[in-house]
Amino acid sequence: MKKIIGILGGMGPGATADAFEKLVASTPARKDQEHIPVIVASLPDIPDRTENIIHSGASPLPAMINSLNILKNAGASCIIMPCNTAHYWYDELRKQSDLPFISIIESTCERIIAEEKHPVALLATTATIRTRLYQNKLAKAGITYLLPDEKDQDNIMKSILLYKSGKSKSAYDTLLPCLEKLEKSGAKHFIMGCTEIPLILHDLSRQQPEKYIDTTEELIKKTIRWYYS
Amino acid sequence: MKKIIGILGGMGPGATADAFEKLVASTPARKDQEHIPVIVASLPDIPDRTENIIHSGASPLPAMINSLNILKNAGASCIIMPCNTAHYWYDELRKQSDLPFISIIESTCERIIAEEKHPVALLATTATIRTRLYQNKLAKAGITYLLPDEKDQDNIMKSILLYKSGKSKSAYDTLLPCLEKLEKSGAKHFIMGCTEIPLILHDLSRQQPEKYIDTTEELIKKTIRWYYS
Repeated sequence: MKKIIGILGGMGPGATADAFEKLVASTPARKDQEHIPVIVASLPDIPDRTENIIHSGASPLPAMINSLNILKNAGASCIIMPCNTAHYWYDELRKQSDLPFISIIESTCERIIAEEKHPVALLATTATIRTRLYQNKLAKAGITYLLPDEKDQDNIMKSILLYKSGKSKSAYDTLLPCLEKLEKSGAKHFIMGCTEIPLILHDLSRQQPEKYIDTTEELIKKTIRWYYS
Repeated sequence: MKKIIGILGGMGPGATADAFEKLVASTPARKDQEHIPVIVASLPDIPDRTENIIHSGASPLPAMINSLNILKNAGASCIIMPCNTAHYWYDELRKQSDLPFISIIESTCERIIAEEKHPVALLATTATIRTRLYQNKLAKAGITYLLPDEKDQDNIMKSILLYKSGKSKSAYDTLLPCLEKLEKSGAKHFIMGCTEIPLILHDLSRQQPEKYIDTTEELIKKTIRWYYS
């Protein structure tokens, strides 16, 4: 019985496609048949995660559990979820099945801690910041991190929503000044801690792979290690 | 009940990811929740289609039916299959379910015929050429087409397999001289009639979108029209 990776996606769909593409591109296969089996559930009508956490909007959990069950029934042997903010519900989701569930937050923090990449600035949704998904783990490991000020955080959120609405150029232009300010404040590395950010910063982050930590890529690298283990 | 697109993929995985990415990029959505629901089955351990048709290798049909059933059980309301050669089994697959199944061959031919894009050269696997998946439809509509000579066809097949083995630069270098010869022979347009070819010719075909007909893109455009119909 071959292992099948289940991608719990749709948050957002562009980030899901990016994760799938990165999985294919990073697999050491010489022909189709050697590639990793994948089932993707990209059912994006999931209530907005940040809206729920910040403004008490509808909970995304039931829709996320629905996607998880689709993947389980389709034969997935491991779940990954290429959305950082959605990991606020990681423990709840883990309770729904016995399948291994590789965390994007853990995958990313493991690399940052192992390579002592700090001071590191966190680029993420306002909900990911408020729920301290990264900060608690980094602080515990003695990694110094920087957060954007409130105005820049609003702009980062705006940039993510611009990208989700199809405006990738405006998203980039809105995000760039925030990076420059964080860099002036001492940031040596950036966690692209929302899976839309590697898409917004695609060209820039490819030019400086040591500076930009792509959470989607860290998740995929750990998934591939799990697959071959 | 929302419609869900089922992508019967894995042939190859890179082409599957490309189809998914093109679906997301071409959807007129302003936020995650407006995007088209998609389930992808990319279970690439499907016997090679060309090997079966040309050299009587194992049949890919049982594995394709398995993926189709996974999509059906997961709630797909329509099937698409981003692989041209696999459409040799299109009629057999259609018999397996009542779901609409949008053909990549039909989608592409409809555009070529409507826009009278000829003379058109066919770039495809040797199996797609031998089984006349495109030629019969084009000839019937009075579209003149060109096929590569035997040596160039071998190189096109080699280029596709190079891409599938991760060697995208060699794939491009192997394919390019075949295009130049077809162009000298009078081809005004090219059908990228294997879903790896839009990946091999990515930059070139984006520069000349009128010349290169991307079968994955034609399939996705028709799928989006179906979704909103």
